[in-house]
Amino acid sequence: MIKAFAAKEPGGKLEPFEYDPGQLGSEDVEIDVESCGICHSDISMLDNDWGLTEYPFVPGHEVVGTVAAIGDNVSSLKVGQKVGLGWHSAYCNDCRTCESGDHNLCQSAQMTIAGRHGGFAEKVRAQAAAVIPLPEGIDPDKAGPLFCGGITVFNPLAQFNLPPTSEVGVIGIGGLGHLALQFLNAWGCKVVAFSSSEEKKQEAKELGAHEVINSRNSDELEAAAGRFDLIISTVNVKLDWNTYLSTLAPKGRLHFVGATLEPLDLEVFPLIMAQRSVSGSPVGSPATIRKMLDFANHHNIEPVTEFYSFDEINEALDRLREGKAHYRVVLKR
Amino acid sequence: MIKAFAAKEPGGKLEPFEYDPGQLGSEDVEIDVESCGICHSDISMLDNDWGLTEYPFVPGHEVVGTVAAIGDNVSSLKVGQKVGLGWHSAYCNDCRTCESGDHNLCQSAQMTIAGRHGGFAEKVRAQAAAVIPLPEGIDPDKAGPLFCGGITVFNPLAQFNLPPTSEVGVIGIGGLGHLALQFLNAWGCKVVAFSSSEEKKQEAKELGAHEVINSRNSDELEAAAGRFDLIISTVNVKLDWNTYLSTLAPKGRLHFVGATLEPLDLEVFPLIMAQRSVSGSPVGSPATIRKMLDFANHHNIEPVTEFYSFDEINEALDRLREGKAHYRVVLKR
Repeated sequence: MIKAFAAKEPGGKLEPFEYDPGQLGSEDVEIDVESCGICHSDISMLDNDWGLTEYPFVPGHEVVGTVAAIGDNVSSLKVGQKVGLGWHSAYCNDCRTCESGDHNLCQSAQMTIAGRHGGFAEKVRAQAAAVIPLPEGIDPDKAGPLFCGGITVFNPLAQFNLPPTSEVGVIGIGGLGHLALQFLNAWGCKVVAFSSSEEKKQEAKELGAHEVINSRNSDELEAAAGRFDLIISTVNVKLDWNTYLSTLAPKGRLHFVGATLEPLDLEVFPLIMAQRSVSGSPVGSPATIRKMLDFANHHNIEPVTEFYSFDEINEALDRLREGKAHYRVVLKR
Repeated sequence: MIKAFAAKEPGGKLEPFEYDPGQLGSEDVEIDVESCGICHSDISMLDNDWGLTEYPFVPGHEVVGTVAAIGDNVSSLKVGQKVGLGWHSAYCNDCRTCESGDHNLCQSAQMTIAGRHGGFAEKVRAQAAAVIPLPEGIDPDKAGPLFCGGITVFNPLAQFNLPPTSEVGVIGIGGLGHLALQFLNAWGCKVVAFSSSEEKKQEAKELGAHEVINSRNSDELEAAAGRFDLIISTVNVKLDWNTYLSTLAPKGRLHFVGATLEPLDLEVFPLIMAQRSVSGSPVGSPATIRKMLDFANHHNIEPVTEFYSFDEINEALDRLREGKAHYRVVLKR
């Protein structure tokens, strides 16, 4: 039996919960969970915002731990190895998308917290292909958020082969955005934070922003016309996207890693006249997660975290719900 | 004095009109117009749909002719040379965008039919940098439409370095779309035409489509889910863009070369989950126009044209207005 914390209904409190995971699959590993970040999507799933959630529901998909057992066919990982697990727990590994190295876009990819139980638990299981060794030198306590928040903002840099000569804006300086600033600064880019909070201005600069634009000040936004090669939006609210489009340079890209439920009312002329793109991406593939970890390790990039014990799980969730997390909440033994 | 045809008011008939072009600029050339295609944007400008038009207005930006005179500093062209002129008549040539070879995105680029008089005339002038020699082997009578319609659909193939292994859809089989089918077929791609017209099915196949999807048949559209690496939309009406998004493969791109005035109501999740892009582009740079002409020449790609004399200019415009052009109307001496 695996001891976990589960909600019994949408928005419910997490309560102790045990489940029988059955026999370990031949391609799978079992991880002793040592820490687990809390991501906004844990709350979206807990509340069944996306209509995907089955209850009892065990959240948690920013797992760091130690391999406790491996399936018969697993040769890539060893018992005792320090590893991480993110949004995806398994891939089909034989579709054209997986074969191309784009496992994160595999239509049959399994999510760690949908159709299975997540990392708010003593143990969690996943296919070995989705479990990534933690490089020597990364602080395991702080590494959890890299496996979802971190890879989500790192992935577009790798996907679009972003030139370090780029000028890049980041919308929303929170759990994702504060990591994006660090990655982009280390990537060599000129980094601009868009934030509605004057308080965060100094901190954004310490995290790697070279400049902060107050996103509630339309004069500042208009003055940025034609400037950015890339803007990464991490927010899940509707903004004036056409104004942000106008701040893109020729061939610039407005890229969404935060999911707004409201459609984007995009005008076509600003796309056509300056050959601009609008796009989105989810988390990254195993290969890109490895690159991200190596890059974070090399540049001493880590999330700013607040730690809670697993017994304080509901307080920790409330902290995030109230928008007070600074910047990422991690549950730790 | 240059003899031309001009409208005196929005939507007005074209009438004979003379203007004094002044002394030939040192960087400019004068072209004896031999033929000129009619593009839908000539009608949009004639009707002042975009609020840019000055009257008297001389349309015409798909010009083929012979260099009649060259400015003092022009060394790239010679009197008597066969040339073409498209949407742009001049570039600043020293901004960062021009320096990067992206003259077509230059913010100071001058349009052939805005702020100056176009090619429905005996002569037209333009900066030498915007005037492209016609390669030996291309039929001059049919080449005009390549300089706007042709380059507009060719440009994304070059810009995105489209792999010939791509599966590509073309929305709208008209003046632009019928050229897109030919270019994509020669490019090596699997080509699918989206058309609402059953009549055009056979002809789309003759032009290069390997398959035709009836865009009014929602079953056919849904069956195409996840299929296309690129879709080029040439239409200027609102379609169900989210359905087209769903027909894109992972990393697929929905690209607009036709300008719809209504915003795109795009959902964010389908962009994020499959790392899709939505983008647009205008005509191409001089370097890309040259590539396009060489490629058209090599593959015997030419527009399907209907010829009118310059005296029949109003009949020719009506033909296009009524949507009867098959596929491109060209005025010819």
